[in-house]
Amino acid sequence: MRQRHIRNREDILRDCGGYIVEDPKSMKGHWLDLFPGCEGLYLEIGSGKGQFISGMAERYPRRAFLACEGQFNVYPRILQKIGAKGLENLRLISEYITDPCDLFEDGELDGIYLNFSDPWKKRTANRRLTYRGKLEGYKRICKSGAFLQFKTDNEELFDYSLEELAAADLVPAAVERDLHSSPLADNNIVTEYEEKFASQGIKIKYFLVNFT
Amino acid sequence: MRQRHIRNREDILRDCGGYIVEDPKSMKGHWLDLFPGCEGLYLEIGSGKGQFISGMAERYPRRAFLACEGQFNVYPRILQKIGAKGLENLRLISEYITDPCDLFEDGELDGIYLNFSDPWKKRTANRRLTYRGKLEGYKRICKSGAFLQFKTDNEELFDYSLEELAAADLVPAAVERDLHSSPLADNNIVTEYEEKFASQGIKIKYFLVNFT
Repeated sequence: MRQRHIRNREDILRDCGGYIVEDPKSMKGHWLDLFPGCEGLYLEIGSGKGQFISGMAERYPRRAFLACEGQFNVYPRILQKIGAKGLENLRLISEYITDPCDLFEDGELDGIYLNFSDPWKKRTANRRLTYRGKLEGYKRICKSGAFLQFKTDNEELFDYSLEELAAADLVPAAVERDLHSSPLADNNIVTEYEEKFASQGIKIKYFLVNFT
Repeated sequence: MRQRHIRNREDILRDCGGYIVEDPKSMKGHWLDLFPGCEGLYLEIGSGKGQFISGMAERYPRRAFLACEGQFNVYPRILQKIGAKGLENLRLISEYITDPCDLFEDGELDGIYLNFSDPWKKRTANRRLTYRGKLEGYKRICKSGAFLQFKTDNEELFDYSLEELAAADLVPAAVERDLHSSPLADNNIVTEYEEKFASQGIKIKYFLVNFT
């Protein structure tokens, strides 16, 4: 496996820009065509520098993963990881998703990951990725048996999210307010934020929902 | 790591009998003395041939594990695994435990695993390892923040166990009726039974309790 040392955005985009999905809306309903030999489609919304999703793609080479990160100066780090690790089963949506239903057909996804999502202020709570309207959308684009997994350091966002789950008639299969001292974390792939917060002694909050 | 090929009970006991804890009641309150350099004490009740607990001990070399298996013709397989893998952090209690409070001080344990426990018939349900009286015992010997993790193929036993949790005022942090299609299984070390049942398409049921 060749490690690439690429310093700036232009170099990264030249070498690894091919991992970006151009015109993601056009993929609606046939995402798996991008991943021959893979079974199951998993989306992370807000991938940051991609430590989590690239770790997952490495661990599960037969599953198809989509990273989603709109930050111009951040998502090149995901491309770098895909290139460095030679991941055939991970591609990047390099824009913010307003409504995932624009990109995915009903029942197209097998799992959604939300890691350390932006907490937004209360008055703009409908931008939060666990706002009930968003949850309704995830429910549509996830197949029966698919999951939504959520991790955060933010207690207020966590409590809010549990309330929103209830409002959307979703019963979590797991709720854990101290993930790192739980067996649920035995093989947990950590995100960059998670590493930072956990090292500061901040407890990582976690929930899991199974869609029916 | 040397693989030993030992065929019969006597040979195994001669070579690996030292991994058995003699007089386990005498260890009450100072189990960690057996495991210098380890932090945290984890017990599996009903270890069978030890695939799960030896896998855990291998994965977490700084945690102390106790297997517990009373079956005369079964527990030698655990000793074999300890010997073959050279596990310094796993020891065997080679008898049935009637009351774990006889063996462990209040708050001595960091976690308890119950895997594919004997379902017993309804009329002898108080022998089940998730009988409310047993749960009360686990609560005592577990420290605050410790966990109880349960896996089974048996739906009736699972439903019974959830009722017993409620009766013992324990709220599960996770309940999963199809563990193997859940991200909770990402980290899961399988037992021999689990392998067999899952390969037959039987869904593995799981719960996790955190003691407060």
